[in-house]
Amino acid sequence: MNILLREAKKSDMNAVLLLIKELATFEKEADAVELTEKDLERDGFGAQPFFKVFVAEENKEIIGMALFYERYSTWKGRSLHLEDLIVKQEHRNKGVGKELYAKVLHYAHEQKFRRVSWEVLDWNQVAIDFYVSTGARILDSWKVVHMDERSLGGFVERY
Amino acid sequence: MNILLREAKKSDMNAVLLLIKELATFEKEADAVELTEKDLERDGFGAQPFFKVFVAEENKEIIGMALFYERYSTWKGRSLHLEDLIVKQEHRNKGVGKELYAKVLHYAHEQKFRRVSWEVLDWNQVAIDFYVSTGARILDSWKVVHMDERSLGGFVERY
Repeated sequence: MNILLREAKKSDMNAVLLLIKELATFEKEADAVELTEKDLERDGFGAQPFFKVFVAEENKEIIGMALFYERYSTWKGRSLHLEDLIVKQEHRNKGVGKELYAKVLHYAHEQKFRRVSWEVLDWNQVAIDFYVSTGARILDSWKVVHMDERSLGGFVERY
Repeated sequence: MNILLREAKKSDMNAVLLLIKELATFEKEADAVELTEKDLERDGFGAQPFFKVFVAEENKEIIGMALFYERYSTWKGRSLHLEDLIVKQEHRNKGVGKELYAKVLHYAHEQKFRRVSWEVLDWNQVAIDFYVSTGARILDSWKVVHMDERSLGGFVERY
């Protein structure tokens, strides 16, 4: 295996978007991705980038990626949030995901973030067991809440 | 009731920290707050602020606050995350929390965020019912995962 891990460039965003869509399909939400390549280019490579991406490359092909950004914990301070980590179906089970995961955690440690957070589907036991084996903690009593654009529009009309 | 809602200033961070600690106590994690007033002043009011706060004021006293920051959804794009919303015990049940909540959502709508997210404790049914009544969705199948600084330090030594 000859895998190169590196920070993504603007020209990688097409490959990154394909990976985002592959992950959404795995998560049974294939239609949820409204983001475009242009959005990723604008939002990740402007004067104030909203996220950072590491990609895994094999023979010039991008076979995996990890996308993350900063958050702020009122308990701990600056923290890093790993939004997506995905390896192409045909390249799984050879350690690429683990290398990307380690790269993000090493980056968080070097940058002195006080916490790294992410979210996992409760039926993805393989992932959960892996995370726990590396020292992460599953917060069983917290629920994620979302208000989407449409509900937000409805809310501001009513209140 | 004569409540003023406004954006927080650097000099409000002492009051904001007391509210963060009150919320952590309510969440049965009183000792989890490692953040100091100095941290909040530095992180919220530097060249690149890591969060924004709205406070609720009554007779010059800060009686509630909402702290939030940007995230990035690979499905929707720029999103807003409401990290903390808290009203002082003795000022609850008079609508201050709902006003702060509405202010954050109006702000998110004006700024064209594509999603607002937050987290809720699964035993806080009053809060859950309120959120759902306003159009928010509880994501039952997602779990929050944290790796704290100590585990992160252990991880980078091993991998």
